[in-house]
Amino acid sequence: MVKAESVSVNDSASAVSLDGVRDALIRLEDTIVFSLIERAQYPINSAMYDESAGLVAGQRGSLIKFFMKRTEALQAEAGRYESEEENAFFPDCLPCSLVPSRRSTSVLHPVAKMVNINKDIWDVYINRLLPLFAAQGDDGNYALAAASDLTCLQAISRRIHYGKFVAEAKFLDDSQEYTRLIRARDRNGLMKLLTVEAVEKMVKLRVEKKAETFGQEVTLDPINNGSGNYKIDPLVVARLYEEWLIPLTKEVEVEYLLRRLD
Amino acid sequence: MVKAESVSVNDSASAVSLDGVRDALIRLEDTIVFSLIERAQYPINSAMYDESAGLVAGQRGSLIKFFMKRTEALQAEAGRYESEEENAFFPDCLPCSLVPSRRSTSVLHPVAKMVNINKDIWDVYINRLLPLFAAQGDDGNYALAAASDLTCLQAISRRIHYGKFVAEAKFLDDSQEYTRLIRARDRNGLMKLLTVEAVEKMVKLRVEKKAETFGQEVTLDPINNGSGNYKIDPLVVARLYEEWLIPLTKEVEVEYLLRRLD
Repeated sequence: MVKAESVSVNDSASAVSLDGVRDALIRLEDTIVFSLIERAQYPINSAMYDESAGLVAGQRGSLIKFFMKRTEALQAEAGRYESEEENAFFPDCLPCSLVPSRRSTSVLHPVAKMVNINKDIWDVYINRLLPLFAAQGDDGNYALAAASDLTCLQAISRRIHYGKFVAEAKFLDDSQEYTRLIRARDRNGLMKLLTVEAVEKMVKLRVEKKAETFGQEVTLDPINNGSGNYKIDPLVVARLYEEWLIPLTKEVEVEYLLRRLD
Repeated sequence: MVKAESVSVNDSASAVSLDGVRDALIRLEDTIVFSLIERAQYPINSAMYDESAGLVAGQRGSLIKFFMKRTEALQAEAGRYESEEENAFFPDCLPCSLVPSRRSTSVLHPVAKMVNINKDIWDVYINRLLPLFAAQGDDGNYALAAASDLTCLQAISRRIHYGKFVAEAKFLDDSQEYTRLIRARDRNGLMKLLTVEAVEKMVKLRVEKKAETFGQEVTLDPINNGSGNYKIDPLVVARLYEEWLIPLTKEVEVEYLLRRLD
């Protein structure tokens, strides 16, 4: 997403380092591919996502919502959402952290807190992504599949909301032009300025290669190794990035930038 | 661990399939290597494991225990421990499942429930394994590191307790000899009978190769790719299997077998 070679950023400790943001996004690709491979072990298990299935005794709504809300509450107590890099799916019902805050100097503008598109990510993940990589069927293995969904959702959300850091770095790099477009409320102009097609193409090719590498059957047999059986289709992973992860990251970038001068 | 080629098992639906057990263990290697690579992103963060650090307001004990106990309670409600393949680290304080049981015919002897060596796994993981693959230091990123520990611990525990299924399959394959050794309470004889050194060697080599494959830096640069920078040292992963995962799995096998005729 970020063409680190072409920019230079304010060097102070509190500024976003573009190299750092780029490295974090590249490392997150591994986490996302691992998490998708793990979820692909289970069939789609549609009942988990059915709001009216009544799968959890004494609880309204779907099993996955029950599981996510409760896990987020616990992780909030462990301090997860004290970090600017984390955004909850159900932020309205989170308890306070019980762990001493280690919050370092904030690198984002305070409006960053207002940018949270997890509702869209939730819908896209369940309705668009899952059916692409999880097999049809129901093995009843809900607790493990839900834990896998949680890992996928958190990794994807982290990636997409990293758009705030990307946007901040880009803003610092070319404040004048970004300021002009922000004041003009020029959404299309902002989207155009922050898009680097060559970088997006590279990201897609790289995640495809990561899915091939991490999803292959590793055996000690030198002949059968890497025989083209993947745990998740590498082209599907490239498509997830192309159609959803990259566009949603840019949406976060634009939403952040539009508030950047508030 | 299981030499599937050399055995033939009772074919009925309720019997353990050795091929199935072997495939599950091989697939679990990927999960374990992924989880170790993910945990290796964070430094060791020793304060998390310190029983007297008082890191969680209003709670006694370490942050990791707080996090594990609470997560296990939630996952128990989602039905995780209804499965014979899962063993809790803190089984004494688990709520009932709120999700309708999908329990199929049990394939293990009822004594399987009594075999749980998670206390040993906990100690080994925190005191022996973590220091081998997590860097020194403290980045305060406790909530994410704890979630990674949880994934590692659950995957390693699942692998080691799969020993029950291995043992059941081996027992069914050679009931006469196993029965003789069990009645004689011959621990050493059992350990010898269930050990296949050639298979253990193969497992170690394969997990080393998996750590190389999954932990490499995947880039689009054909020259720098796989340049020998690994996210976790492949030899350390082989050592984890050799010194702890394989021996503890066999310990579970022996413990299960010693109760198999009760």
